[in-house]
Amino acid sequence: MGQEKPLGVHCILELFGCPSELLDDLNFIERAIEEGSKAARSSLIHITSHKFSPQGVTAVGLLAESHLSVHTWPERNYAAVDIFTCGERTQPEHACELLVQLFQPKQYSLLVLSRGWQGESPRIEKHRVEEAELCPVRG
Amino acid sequence: MGQEKPLGVHCILELFGCPSELLDDLNFIERAIEEGSKAARSSLIHITSHKFSPQGVTAVGLLAESHLSVHTWPERNYAAVDIFTCGERTQPEHACELLVQLFQPKQYSLLVLSRGWQGESPRIEKHRVEEAELCPVRG
Repeated sequence: MGQEKPLGVHCILELFGCPSELLDDLNFIERAIEEGSKAARSSLIHITSHKFSPQGVTAVGLLAESHLSVHTWPERNYAAVDIFTCGERTQPEHACELLVQLFQPKQYSLLVLSRGWQGESPRIEKHRVEEAELCPVRG
Repeated sequence: MGQEKPLGVHCILELFGCPSELLDDLNFIERAIEEGSKAARSSLIHITSHKFSPQGVTAVGLLAESHLSVHTWPERNYAAVDIFTCGERTQPEHACELLVQLFQPKQYSLLVLSRGWQGESPRIEKHRVEEAELCPVRG
């Protein structure tokens, strides 16, 4: 159909070895979503969140360009982050860099998919695991 | 680390050739999120949504087990759906089957990732494109 660009880019960020107190801090996570949305050059419409007992936070920022979600497992020092944006102006990978900096993982992986290719599966644009000592943002 | 199971399963569903009037109907999409959450055996905490002008809907259901998001492009007859759930009880692929039925795509793709493998990238569990005539739910 001659489609040259995807409709959206979806960054799937796995954060391992994060400080558990950060992962259980609802205010920190909401602020991270706000800052991440700005770094992605996206427009945050609304954040919805929930704090679990005894621990864990789930939060989603609804963006004009799709969403930014954070789900945390403090007992595993793990956070699952998604940044899905559309439009040529947005920079979801910039948000990933900032979130790695904020969440202080010892290790992380980034899978970048492009979505909305007519009649096709998402394309895998990037797929990598990084040790924290290799993260420039923590250097 | 002896981890035998992932923490979560993330279904990435691309729906192509959907009726544009469905994709522009906020009530329909919120209902689809409610029904999809039930089909996944997950607990819906809250739905947040936005209707764009002149067209398009973005909506996310915050689940106790992560999230279910729907972003639509009526002008392209395309919807991007994510169903990310944790826990052994949930059945995100059941939600995908229901959502394919509700959104009536001519074609769809399903990419299933497992997430939360300590220090690893998400694993690709399934990756396929289906024509509508092959969808049992529309048969």
